[in-house]
Formats: sequence, structure tokens, C-alpha cells
Amino acid sequence: MSDNNKPYVIGLDLGGTNSVFGIVDANANVIAETSVKTRGHNDDAQQYVDDCVVELRKIIDQVGGLQKIRAMGIGAPNGNYYTGCIEFAPNLVWAHKIVPLAKMFSDALEGLPVALTNDANAAAIGEMTYGAARGMKNFIMITLGTGVGSGIVVNGQMVYGCDGMAGELGHVIVEKDGRDCGCGRKGCLETYCSATGITRTAREVLETTNKPTILRDIPIDQVDGLAITQAARKGDAVALEIFEFTGRKLGEACANFACFNSPEAFIFFGGLSKAGDLIMDPIKRAYDENVLKIYQGKAKMLVSQLDDAKAAVLGASALGWEIAPE
Amino acid sequence: MSDNNKPYVIGLDLGGTNSVFGIVDANANVIAETSVKTRGHNDDAQQYVDDCVVELRKIIDQVGGLQKIRAMGIGAPNGNYYTGCIEFAPNLVWAHKIVPLAKMFSDALEGLPVALTNDANAAAIGEMTYGAARGMKNFIMITLGTGVGSGIVVNGQMVYGCDGMAGELGHVIVEKDGRDCGCGRKGCLETYCSATGITRTAREVLETTNKPTILRDIPIDQVDGLAITQAARKGDAVALEIFEFTGRKLGEACANFACFNSPEAFIFFGGLSKAGDLIMDPIKRAYDENVLKIYQGKAKMLVSQLDDAKAAVLGASALGWEIAPE
Repeated sequence: MSDNNKPYVIGLDLGGTNSVFGIVDANANVIAETSVKTRGHNDDAQQYVDDCVVELRKIIDQVGGLQKIRAMGIGAPNGNYYTGCIEFAPNLVWAHKIVPLAKMFSDALEGLPVALTNDANAAAIGEMTYGAARGMKNFIMITLGTGVGSGIVVNGQMVYGCDGMAGELGHVIVEKDGRDCGCGRKGCLETYCSATGITRTAREVLETTNKPTILRDIPIDQVDGLAITQAARKGDAVALEIFEFTGRKLGEACANFACFNSPEAFIFFGGLSKAGDLIMDPIKRAYDENVLKIYQGKAKMLVSQLDDAKAAVLGASALGWEIAPE
Repeated sequence: MSDNNKPYVIGLDLGGTNSVFGIVDANANVIAETSVKTRGHNDDAQQYVDDCVVELRKIIDQVGGLQKIRAMGIGAPNGNYYTGCIEFAPNLVWAHKIVPLAKMFSDALEGLPVALTNDANAAAIGEMTYGAARGMKNFIMITLGTGVGSGIVVNGQMVYGCDGMAGELGHVIVEKDGRDCGCGRKGCLETYCSATGITRTAREVLETTNKPTILRDIPIDQVDGLAITQAARKGDAVALEIFEFTGRKLGEACANFACFNSPEAFIFFGGLSKAGDLIMDPIKRAYDENVLKIYQGKAKMLVSQLDDAKAAVLGASALGWEIAPE
């Protein structure tokens, strides 16, 4: 199963429900994989780490033992690269705590180097290491999930900012006094362009207009990104209008983002990006119409090249390669 | 006049009207200075460089000759760091050209290393080398002049982007379908917060309301940033309201900018920043009210520490130090 001379890293995609571990080689092959429920463990982070390491040891042994592993990377919500901590992550059981997870895994794995960052940054590092951003020095990764995340790369380096928490483009306010956001403010990009955002748009249209649409055949609480995508693929005018609105908001926002780091690409990942041209076409049109003339035609609009099921683990593993000793 | 063992660099602040040269030591002392009109020279860039070098040689000789000079930095509108060219600068006589000015000065000065960037980036490098940003690795410089410029620093490096033209925060659209901008679009930050922007705000208030204000004692085409500042200092309610509006727009924009690189400071320079608390207080209030919770209380709001008359030359010279051979 493993070539004896090849070094590996561990990637951990820590989500609200599952924690997925992969042992990954330098060519983005996931050699072994296991997963552990994130919840449970008596709500105790040390118990969580101990339970994870029991499972992890099994796949480490499969590839030839800990001496084959160079480092571990973790992608986690509210992960702070500088401190190695998960800080007040609202969707995790440790919502009100700062958990020094990088150190805890390192201690449990005989001092293995462990780094941690937020999931969108891990996706950006993964794309740079294995995917659509290979060779790029300046790009912006936008993750379209339950929320909107981002990872920004400048001069070939992740932008972590003064506190390790930079790159929250989902919380750029795009509509003054707009939709209520979970962050406590109004009009953030993610209230329009996340999976939740497009659902809100659909409900607004269904509840405030009489436009005919096959979306009315579905119970309103089941109208989600997937249902809207399926309707749009059938040519449903309302579903297409919802994608147009969502994509335009994203394209206009990206036109502003270009003023920061003049990226060579925006790379979209996750959920809504699966809708392909339905979302990408309005993004591109709104971007071209709104971007400053000096940036026109410069940034590519790309969809992630990473296999969705493995992307998060690969992103985390790429962070592992970044910190692996020579 | 010069200590024989001390190395120097040349800084050139290339403006629409004047080109100011300074010979600068490592402690930000401008040892010698000269200037040349930017216009004239038969609209010929080579003639401009030749004429400049005649004047420049005089001050180079004063400090002990070209062997004392390590490098030269140029801050110029539309300056591209990667190419060393000034590209289509609307306010220069070479508006429709790409002028490879860094190479031209280097050729005229016996191969001296010469680098060039835009004026706002030069200001940021100057602030990092000699001013309020010493020791900072992540900050945003905002220059409030005729337009609004910016220089962004991430991980201690200038953000130049994929094309050398990154950092145009004055052209972030802050008001959809807002004021017409010289860039051909609408609602850019600089249409509200530049010297020109605050004047437009004043004229709107004077022309569309009957509010009493001492600004009505001045011919309307003479109501400029300075006049508004003087009125506000006298407690004029309308002038204070104009500053409140202008500062709030800036503070709201900066709250969005924080989502990019979580800076440890925003540093304001030039024109309007001279109004001190009149502009800084509403900036700070709007920033605190609008910034994402995780960034609250992290970024300082500072005014440049560089002597205004010398700041542009110092900024350009700091770029010279960046490229000077050991």
C-alpha cells in the first residue's frame, strides 16, 4: 500500500459533524483515510484529540508508522494560523472556547509539526499546491458553502493579517442595511451568495411575487440550492433569475476585491460553484461590467479543480507540506 | 555637507507639475534637493530624463559623486513596479504612452539600480521605513489628495498584484449608482473622500438645502477642503456635517477593507488628513460601528508621521533602499 521511501503528511478536515483524516503523498494521492465524529467526546477537546489519535494511529500504521509522516495540517472553522487555536467557532461544540488544537495534536503525536488554519485558507493552499492555482502568486479563493469563506494569496503567501484572521470576504458589506447576517451586522456578501443566501433569495421571490415557477411545486422549506439548480437546468425563468441575482452580487463584489491585490484568478469552490455556468456566467458578466479599466481582462474566473470529496483534506494536507521539515 | 562613509539613495517624487529629487541618507535626512518642471522638454520623455540628470548631477557632486549613491526610487502616478514604466498617466504629458522611466534613468546614471512605483505605494514604503508604520507587517496606507490612493502591505511586503497595479482602494465602489468618477464608473470611494469629493459634498449641501453656514459667504467655486476645514474649526454646523459624512464613508469603507488583510493600522496621508480630529473622529466611529466583531479594536487609525513637504521624496527614496545592493 505504501512505497517505503515516500514521505507523507496528514490532513485533517475538521467540520461541524465529521472530522476526516487523510494521509497524503506529495502528488495529492490520499493513501489512507479515516473519520471520527466531531461531536461527542464529552464536549471535551482533549478527549476528542485522544479519540481521534486512536483511529489515526491505525492508518498511520498502515503506511509504515509515524516516522513516515512529516507534518500535519488542519483546516477548521475559525482556525487561527498564528496561534494554532480554534477560536470561538459557532458551529463546533467548543463554541465558547479557544482550543489550542495544533499543540494538542502535536503533543499526542510525539511532537509532530502541526499547523492549523481556517477551512477557506486550507482550500486556497490546496488549490495552490494541487489544483487550479498551481504556479499562481496572487489569487483569491472564494468558498460557497453554508457561508461564504475566502483565502487570499499575495506574493505566493497566504494573507493571515495582524491576528491570523484575515480573509473574511464573506463579511464584506455589499448592501447597506441589507439582509441580517449571523455576524450581527447587515448586508454581508454571504447573506446573498452562500447556500443559505440563495435560499433566502428564492423564498423572497416566491413569497413576494406571483411569478410562475416549478419551485412552487416544492414545499417552501425544501427550496434549497440543489432544487434551484435543478429548476434552472430545466429552463425555469425564476430559478435562472435567482442565479442571475446571486452571480451578479458575487461578480460586483469581486470587481471591488480586484482593487486590493489585482489577482490573476478568482477560484470558486463548493456548493453553489457546482452549478457551473448557471452561476459563473453572471459572475463573469457582472465582473467585466464593474471592474476598474486597468484590471479588465486580467483575472480568470475559475472553478476549483480539486475533487470535492477530498478537497478539504487535501487543502489541510497542503498546509502540512508547507510546514514539513526538509 | 556629507559624511564620506555614508551611503545615499536618490528619491524622485514625480508629480504633474514638478519633479522633486532628494538625496537621502539611511536616517531619512534629505541631504540635498533639486527640482525640475515635469512639463516641457518637448513632451519627450528622453529629453525630460536628460534635463533632469543635468540638475541631478549637480547635487550628486555635492554629496561626493555617483559612487556614494546606492540606488534610486521613483514615485509616480500610474507607476508599475514590475515593469518600471509609467503607464497612461492621465495627468502627465505622456498620458497616452508607456514610458520605461526606471530603465531610462538607470541608463543615464551609469547603470544605477532604479525602481519605480505609484505614489501611494511609495508613501506606504516611506511610512514603513521612516514613519508611523515602522515595524508593521500588515497595514493600509490611504492617501487623501485630489484622488484617493492606497498602498497595501501584507507580511511586510507591498501588494503589487499580478500586474504591478494592485492597491486602488480609491476605486472601490462604495455607492451603487453613486457619483460619477473620472474612471468612467460610478460611486467610487474617491468621489466622496478626496479633496475633490469633499468639495462636491459641500456644493451639494449648499445647492440643495437652505441650511445657514458661513460657507455661503465664499464664492461657491472657492469652497474647497481648506475652506470647509476653517469653517468647521469655527464650529460651523454644515461644515462639521460635511466632515461627518466624509469621514463616515471612509470609516465604513475601511471596515470592509479590514476583511482583506486584517491590518494593524490604517494610515492616512495628505490633504484631508490635515484636518485632524475633524476627519479622524468620524472615520474611527464609523469603523468601530461597522467592522466585523473579530477585528474590533485591532487596527489603529493613524495620521502619517512624515513631514508633508518631504514625504513623497522620502517614500521614493525608501523604495531606493529596498533595491539597493548590500
